[in-house]
Amino acid sequence: MNSITVFAPATVANVACGFDIFGFAVDNPGDQVTLTASPEPGVRITDIIGDDGRLPRETGRNTAGIAIQTYLQHINRTDVGVDVVLRKQMPLGSGLGSSAASSVAGVFAINELLGRPLPTLKLLPFAMEGERIACGSAHADNVAPSLLGGFVVIRSYQPLDVVRIDTPATLFCTLVHPDIEVNTKDARFILKNEVSLKNTIIQMGNVAGLIAGLMKPDYDLISRSLVDVIIEPVRSILIPEFNEAKKAALANGALGCSISGSGPSMFALSRDARTAEQVGAAMQQAFLSVGITSEAYVSEINRQGPKVLAAPHEVAH
Amino acid sequence: MNSITVFAPATVANVACGFDIFGFAVDNPGDQVTLTASPEPGVRITDIIGDDGRLPRETGRNTAGIAIQTYLQHINRTDVGVDVVLRKQMPLGSGLGSSAASSVAGVFAINELLGRPLPTLKLLPFAMEGERIACGSAHADNVAPSLLGGFVVIRSYQPLDVVRIDTPATLFCTLVHPDIEVNTKDARFILKNEVSLKNTIIQMGNVAGLIAGLMKPDYDLISRSLVDVIIEPVRSILIPEFNEAKKAALANGALGCSISGSGPSMFALSRDARTAEQVGAAMQQAFLSVGITSEAYVSEINRQGPKVLAAPHEVAH
Repeated sequence: MNSITVFAPATVANVACGFDIFGFAVDNPGDQVTLTASPEPGVRITDIIGDDGRLPRETGRNTAGIAIQTYLQHINRTDVGVDVVLRKQMPLGSGLGSSAASSVAGVFAINELLGRPLPTLKLLPFAMEGERIACGSAHADNVAPSLLGGFVVIRSYQPLDVVRIDTPATLFCTLVHPDIEVNTKDARFILKNEVSLKNTIIQMGNVAGLIAGLMKPDYDLISRSLVDVIIEPVRSILIPEFNEAKKAALANGALGCSISGSGPSMFALSRDARTAEQVGAAMQQAFLSVGITSEAYVSEINRQGPKVLAAPHEVAH
Repeated sequence: MNSITVFAPATVANVACGFDIFGFAVDNPGDQVTLTASPEPGVRITDIIGDDGRLPRETGRNTAGIAIQTYLQHINRTDVGVDVVLRKQMPLGSGLGSSAASSVAGVFAINELLGRPLPTLKLLPFAMEGERIACGSAHADNVAPSLLGGFVVIRSYQPLDVVRIDTPATLFCTLVHPDIEVNTKDARFILKNEVSLKNTIIQMGNVAGLIAGLMKPDYDLISRSLVDVIIEPVRSILIPEFNEAKKAALANGALGCSISGSGPSMFALSRDARTAEQVGAAMQQAFLSVGITSEAYVSEINRQGPKVLAAPHEVAH
């Protein structure tokens, strides 16, 4: 009987100016999924560790379960049986792409376990099905960077067109998750359906600037382009001390700072690890000044995507 | 007495998805400006060739005149005297950046004539003053690529932030100018002040995709990204046979095709010269089928910006 454990990275969606189109992966945090082949056909969630009992155990309502199931149906292998153990290693509903990391780890793991019948890029639609369960729509701005690693543009959803963007050799991300909750659906609901042409032009300039800055690379251009005039002014209202935490990040040398996904987590990018650590401490201090505790994570941009932690191996019955 | 003749390239602003933020220069067409130093202080437009008498001869109302005058004021050289001859070599009000080319040629020429007191990038604000006279606002999406060459992003206007983008080694532009007139101010007036968030997201995806496609380079990505869901659907109504001409361009192998600036000229991009020529012929045929004659120009992306055609030399009195 075969077993495999896969890590898939957390992700920052939107990345200031790129609402619904930009995302990147980080080395830390991330989720782990262990699959164990079983003689009994079907996908079973046998255990979830680290969710305080909040995630659904039914396969059809669990993001990783759905992703694996959809994948097996697609490759006509519903005869396969697997037991799934999820190790959640990041806060839920935090804007860090928690559901995406589980979906990606699950579908990557089953593809490895079966000897890689599909190339990695082809796994994206199944991971997106997991997102549909978690968020109500099959967004790709978390699953695509978690699956592919690096910085990703979702150029188009219909048809799906995902473009990987080179990033500077050293680029560090600080993530700070304040211990408050923002519902993703609420965060989407408060957005306006219309944008002024003026702000659309400003945002497009920053979108172009950020891609050019990452590819050249040009840290100053990245910094000038990490500006969001459309979403951040609205959603930041849901995050207490957002302005203070952002100011603290910039004052401590961050290239830029904004909301991670739909929040409440915030991200900052920095040129080096030391700056990224200082930025994290300053942001945590800003939250703590009003009594909000937080977790901070500092890592490089993840370039690899999911990673097999324990290769498929024989397990004694 | 010194004299100099400078060519400055025509430009395609907007480039499908990049309204007000993208522009690129072409090798053909372009305008020529000849400056001749005079002992009498002041800037005089002594002749304009090729405008059928339509452009103002007063220095303060002529784009090149204004650009040169503003420049001389800035460097405190109002003692300088120059006679200016403009050779318009492209249709006016055509969406090809005609006024920008004259401004740029003028200000580049006076800077050369005076021994280059300012670096090229610093000439941009003076050329933009010329645009203010011609269009009512100091837009940079024609003057910046005409001055700098290549493909340019105006990331921001306040403060002005211009980013040059690398383009593939071979990339050809077809320009077709149908013999009809569209007023730039009308073309701006019919635009809506609000854009749906959905279309903003689609447009941002294409903006990111086009920059990535140019820089990688990836012709297919460039092609998929040359899509404008905001401006083209509105402005194309002002151009008879727009849809037919665009279809003809794509059917003949163009990577993409849209309105050049505010029209009525159209541009198409192609991988090679032969395709670009065929695309031009097909577009002209589409216009001709409803009795509209046109001019077509095919050239590479201009990488150099303005060019001195005759070096400063002594002219007999």
